[in-house]
Amino acid sequence: MSTPAPPSNRFERRRAATRQALVGAARRILAESGDTSVSIQMIAEQADVGFGSFYNHFASKDALFDEAVLDALEEYGRAIDERLEGVDDPAERIAFGVRLSVSMAGTHPETMQVLRHQGLAHIQSDRGLSPRALDDLRTGAAIGRFSFASPEIALAALGGSLLALLHMRSTRPTADSDDDARAMAEAMLRMLGIPPDEAHTIASRPLPVRD
Amino acid sequence: MSTPAPPSNRFERRRAATRQALVGAARRILAESGDTSVSIQMIAEQADVGFGSFYNHFASKDALFDEAVLDALEEYGRAIDERLEGVDDPAERIAFGVRLSVSMAGTHPETMQVLRHQGLAHIQSDRGLSPRALDDLRTGAAIGRFSFASPEIALAALGGSLLALLHMRSTRPTADSDDDARAMAEAMLRMLGIPPDEAHTIASRPLPVRD
Repeated sequence: MSTPAPPSNRFERRRAATRQALVGAARRILAESGDTSVSIQMIAEQADVGFGSFYNHFASKDALFDEAVLDALEEYGRAIDERLEGVDDPAERIAFGVRLSVSMAGTHPETMQVLRHQGLAHIQSDRGLSPRALDDLRTGAAIGRFSFASPEIALAALGGSLLALLHMRSTRPTADSDDDARAMAEAMLRMLGIPPDEAHTIASRPLPVRD
Repeated sequence: MSTPAPPSNRFERRRAATRQALVGAARRILAESGDTSVSIQMIAEQADVGFGSFYNHFASKDALFDEAVLDALEEYGRAIDERLEGVDDPAERIAFGVRLSVSMAGTHPETMQVLRHQGLAHIQSDRGLSPRALDDLRTGAAIGRFSFASPEIALAALGGSLLALLHMRSTRPTADSDDDARAMAEAMLRMLGIPPDEAHTIASRPLPVRD
């Protein structure tokens, strides 16, 4: 399901607001308890919309939670995109992307909950970090910066490694998260064919500053 | 919880058999439906043991399923170990280990179910594939074959990448699983600091034959 087009009139705007309220309530549930066994009645109450309107927007509770996950992943991906604006080298984008994903995990708790529990299912997703990473992988291969057997295998390695790092950090937090993230970024660049010395240099560069 | 010592008398043997019957039933449930909401009564029936004996062995249903997961992972690890007997180079062991993990996935369906759903939580486990991989990583670093920031980060990359590949293959099976596994093994060797040409050569070698 893709993001709906901007609403064109008052009815459409109200309809979009109701839908977004349901998605927002589902995201809060994912962030706070992660307990998706909650009733539709309860979700509608938390969203402050009528119970009856639920099925105008979603076929099932699972469909709502799927959309909530994709909505959170997409927001996370956009936030990282913004930080990467003006960074052109695919190797730098991948390294910064890994490190920003880790550093921003704290500000997107629902995304983290979801990634920890169902993350492997989202590595091939067409929203969130994956399509963005896939673009960088393909660009890097096209300009001869990266080498790999297939972009899907490279994406699986990148996504799986990042999820494992996020999971490790959530169970054994250490003082400096960027140390681990830099080490992982360096490992990923080597995996993509960047020579070890250069991988180390790129992974150690200061992160792009926020505007 | 570690594997119990071999039983010493008839009472201990019977006790061990009851425990193993419960673990076996839990493993079948994981393999077949993955539905851990089944009642303890039902598990005891499937194990053909008295309901009352359950709590002599496990404090809760979760504890039983945890043990079933570790039991399956350990069996999987031992099976891969056997195939790797006589392979000494840590790089070859890691590459073959990745490929054997993928090729043996079909013969360990409960392990696969578990890894797909809770695999990230088992990357730091002290049973199954992880402690074996960690040994190879440490040996490889000690003899100067591998280079990485920390064995934990290397293990996270290796485990996460393998899980992502297993997940990808379970949702989009292709004709030759070893093609994907070879590509991933090559990527992992590069990640560990093996030069690209050598990584390709090692990842392409014929798998050790079964005795």
